[in-house]
Amino acid sequence: MSTKTSEKTLQDLFVHALKDIYYAEKAITKALPKMIDKAKHDQLKDALGAHLEETKDHVARLDKVFAELDLKPAAVKCEAIEGILKEGEEVLEQFGDSPAGDAGIIFACQAVEHYEINRYGTMVAWASELKLRPVAQLLKQTLEEEYNADDKLTKLAESSENKEGIVRRAASKKAA
Amino acid sequence: MSTKTSEKTLQDLFVHALKDIYYAEKAITKALPKMIDKAKHDQLKDALGAHLEETKDHVARLDKVFAELDLKPAAVKCEAIEGILKEGEEVLEQFGDSPAGDAGIIFACQAVEHYEINRYGTMVAWASELKLRPVAQLLKQTLEEEYNADDKLTKLAESSENKEGIVRRAASKKAA
Repeated sequence: MSTKTSEKTLQDLFVHALKDIYYAEKAITKALPKMIDKAKHDQLKDALGAHLEETKDHVARLDKVFAELDLKPAAVKCEAIEGILKEGEEVLEQFGDSPAGDAGIIFACQAVEHYEINRYGTMVAWASELKLRPVAQLLKQTLEEEYNADDKLTKLAESSENKEGIVRRAASKKAA
Repeated sequence: MSTKTSEKTLQDLFVHALKDIYYAEKAITKALPKMIDKAKHDQLKDALGAHLEETKDHVARLDKVFAELDLKPAAVKCEAIEGILKEGEEVLEQFGDSPAGDAGIIFACQAVEHYEINRYGTMVAWASELKLRPVAQLLKQTLEEEYNADDKLTKLAESSENKEGIVRRAASKKAA
């Protein structure tokens, strides 16, 4: 707890990151329902709903990581996710009811996914270097789910050959 | 300026994102020198120094994007980058002088890179849908530089077969 700055190790940094992402995952479970509520495209609503359930699993998985390390689960305020979610809310307020609403929701949610992918990716690498194999395995499962969630959003945004994506639809729409 | 929320289009969302990333790039040029100052590994110092120069180019490139759209360059507060940089400063304060310092700096900088990659990636897609080809080209150049900066940091962090990376070195170090 009171380890001097100059004595802190990679394990300390790992535990700091763990508490930070624990805070972030919980904040995301609170923010996602507003996004789901505003989403107009059915598949987007479903994708975000499914990801909300996954996010709850991620919190439970982090509880297991703390247990593996013989630590009590604890959060430290994650300033990054606070900022990312605040920006997402602003986009929702300014564009949520417009023809660009769903594109804005995907924009906001992908900022969250990219943050998480970066954090979990680094934490898996650190856990491996620290020889914390079961911890690395648990975090890797979540990392894969974050990648999949991000991919799903990209596919919904992009146009495919046969079907208009959310972005093309928004681009072709003028104000009502 | 006073477009009603319900009348906003993808072009409006694009301009909002442009002003947001303009703010972010400028904030990053102010934050990077502190990271460079604290970095101990020479190659990390060099990589961040080179990226600071690139970041200044990104601001200039955004000026060109505004010009392409016949808009005066303007920034809107980017809450996400504020949060990400605040978190980075905290990591620097708590770990900057420890054996895990360089790993912490990479951790902080990659959160920035991932945010930018996500933003520029989406903006390139939107610019293409909006048929803003020269704008898409300009943003794509920056996107590629952000990808390269992120890759360089990952390579510095990871151990290769012949050479210890920053993370393995930190993992093997105990407190002094």
